[in-house]
Amino acid sequence: MSDLPKSVKIKEVGPREGFQFEKGAIGLADKISLVDALSDTGLKAIEFTSFVSPKWVPQMADAEQMVAGIKRAPGVAYEAIWLNEAGLERAARLREHLTLRPMFSVAGSDTFMRKNTNRSVDERIDELPGWAERYQTLGLPGIDVGVMAAFGCNYEGDVEPRRVVSVLQRVEQKAEACGSRLHGIGLADTMGWANPLQIKRLVGIVRDRWPETPIKLHLHDTRALAVANVVAGLEMGVDCFDSAVAGMGGCPFAAHKGAAGNVTTEDVVFLCQELGVPTGIDLDLMIEAGQLAERVVGHPLPGKLKSGGNLETYRARARAVSA
Amino acid sequence: MSDLPKSVKIKEVGPREGFQFEKGAIGLADKISLVDALSDTGLKAIEFTSFVSPKWVPQMADAEQMVAGIKRAPGVAYEAIWLNEAGLERAARLREHLTLRPMFSVAGSDTFMRKNTNRSVDERIDELPGWAERYQTLGLPGIDVGVMAAFGCNYEGDVEPRRVVSVLQRVEQKAEACGSRLHGIGLADTMGWANPLQIKRLVGIVRDRWPETPIKLHLHDTRALAVANVVAGLEMGVDCFDSAVAGMGGCPFAAHKGAAGNVTTEDVVFLCQELGVPTGIDLDLMIEAGQLAERVVGHPLPGKLKSGGNLETYRARARAVSA
Repeated sequence: MSDLPKSVKIKEVGPREGFQFEKGAIGLADKISLVDALSDTGLKAIEFTSFVSPKWVPQMADAEQMVAGIKRAPGVAYEAIWLNEAGLERAARLREHLTLRPMFSVAGSDTFMRKNTNRSVDERIDELPGWAERYQTLGLPGIDVGVMAAFGCNYEGDVEPRRVVSVLQRVEQKAEACGSRLHGIGLADTMGWANPLQIKRLVGIVRDRWPETPIKLHLHDTRALAVANVVAGLEMGVDCFDSAVAGMGGCPFAAHKGAAGNVTTEDVVFLCQELGVPTGIDLDLMIEAGQLAERVVGHPLPGKLKSGGNLETYRARARAVSA
Repeated sequence: MSDLPKSVKIKEVGPREGFQFEKGAIGLADKISLVDALSDTGLKAIEFTSFVSPKWVPQMADAEQMVAGIKRAPGVAYEAIWLNEAGLERAARLREHLTLRPMFSVAGSDTFMRKNTNRSVDERIDELPGWAERYQTLGLPGIDVGVMAAFGCNYEGDVEPRRVVSVLQRVEQKAEACGSRLHGIGLADTMGWANPLQIKRLVGIVRDRWPETPIKLHLHDTRALAVANVVAGLEMGVDCFDSAVAGMGGCPFAAHKGAAGNVTTEDVVFLCQELGVPTGIDLDLMIEAGQLAERVVGHPLPGKLKSGGNLETYRARARAVSA
C-alpha cells in the first residue's frame, strides 16, 4: 500500500443527498443544525442543498432559507447543486455565500442518462457549451465533470472503462472547443456496481489518460463494498472522496428498496485515521454529527462508527489504566 | 492483487453467534428453518449452536433439539462450540451427527481473556494438555487454535503481532509436548479493531512463522472495515473466513451498543463473485437465507446484499434487453 496519499480531502454530501431521500418532512432548523455541526468538524467542503424545482423535490424548496440560516465557518466551501439553468441562476444570486463549482454531470450509461434527464449521453454532451459559457460568465473557466454510473448500471450492466474514457474525451473536446477546460474528474458508483479491482482499473486508466487532472470518487454502499472501494482508491493515490454523514441517503431497512446511501463520512475518517492518512477532520465531532443526523431523520442510519466508537478513545483509556 | 486465492471456503457462524445475541426468544422451528436454508446454499460448514450452560445462555438450551431437527445435507460440516468439558461431552455424544473440531480458544489480551473466562492467557494455555487429551480420545490429534482479540482489545488497546505470535508459539509448544500439533490458526478481530494494513501485517508475520498451517480470519464489522479487511486477507492469499448470514449478531440500531456482528456471509460471497474467486455458494440462495434470517429475528440486520441484490441478476436483465 505504498501509494496511499499524503492526505485526503473529504466532501460531505449527506445533507444534499440525504434530506431529499427522506419521506417525512425535515424542519429547516433541524437541517441547519446538522450543517452547523458539520461545519465544526474540520470538513473543508459541505454540499448542503440543491437548487431544484420545489415541484419535483419539495424537500429542497428551502434552499435559499438554508443558505441564509447556516453559519459559515472560515475555510469551509459551502456547495450546492443544480440541474438546469434556473437552478444555477438561483445559486448564482447567492454566490457571495456559496462556493460555485462548475459542475457538469454525464453518465457511463445511455439508459440511465435518459431515465434521469430525458437525454442521451450525446445530447447531454451537446449541452456542454451552454454550461461552459454560463460558468465562464461567473468566472469559472474549468469544468468539473462527474460521470454517474461509471462502473455499472442497473439497466445496461457493467460499464467498461473505455466507455468512461470516451465520454470524458468528448466532454474535454467540447470544453476546449469553447475556451473551457477539464478541471476535475468525478467517478461515481451511482448504483453500487464497483468492486476494488474495478476501482483500481478505472482510476488507473483515467489517470493514465489525464495524469494532471484531480480524480474524485463518489461511492455508494448498496452492496457493502464502498469502504473496500475507498481503500482501493487510496491505494491508487486518490485523495478526494464524497461521503455522507451517518450514511445519509441510505437506510438499513430492506423495505427501503432504493436505499443506496453514500459511504459514511465518519467511517471513512476512521479508516483514514487507522491507515495514518490525515483528513483534517475531528473524528469525535464527526461521530457526534452522525448521531445528530440520526436524530434529525428519526430512523437508524447505516454508518457504523456512531455506535462502534473511535478506537482512539479506547486507546487513551487503555493507556490510562496501564499508566 | 496477484495473491488472490484460487477459491475461498466460508464457514457460516450466524446461527451460533446470532441467536444468542437476540433478546427475544427465537423458536426452535425458526432456528431449524434457517439452518436448513443455509444447508441449501452450497456452504460447506455451518456452526449452528453452542453446548453451553442453559443457565448462562438460555437461547442455546435447545442445542440437542437443533441437532435432532436440522436436515443434514451431504458434504456439509455441521459444527458447534463448547466452552468447557461438560459442553464437549454433550457434543461428543452427538458426534455421528456433528463434525467435531478440536477447538482451543485463547486471546491476544489478558484482560479480555479474564473477563471472558476468569483466567489469564497463561492459565488458559496451561489447560491445553487436558483439551489435547480429550480431543485425542475422540480421534482428533490436532488443535485448531483461535486467537480472540488478535488485533486489538477494548481494555488493553492495540495488540501487537508479536504478542499473537508469542501466544501461538506457547500453544504450539504445549500441544507438541503432549503429542498433539497445531492444526489451524484462527485470527479473530473480536472487537472490531483491525484495519487492512494490520490484517496484512499480522497474516504476513503468522504465515512467515507457520507457512504450512491454514489461517482463518474471523472479522467483526463494528467499525465498518470488515469487508475491506476481507479484501486485505484475500490479497494475502487467505482462503478461509467465518461470516454470518445477514450479519447476524449485529444490529444497525445504535441503541444496541454491543452490536458487533460478523461480516455478512452474502456480502462476502458477492465480493468473491465480483473478484472472480469461487466460493461454491449460490449467491441468490444465500441472499434468500439472509432475508429469512431477518424475518426470523424480527428486526433489521446489517447485511447489504439482501436489499442491494445480486448484480448477476441485473447483468442477465441487461443482456436480455440488448439481445
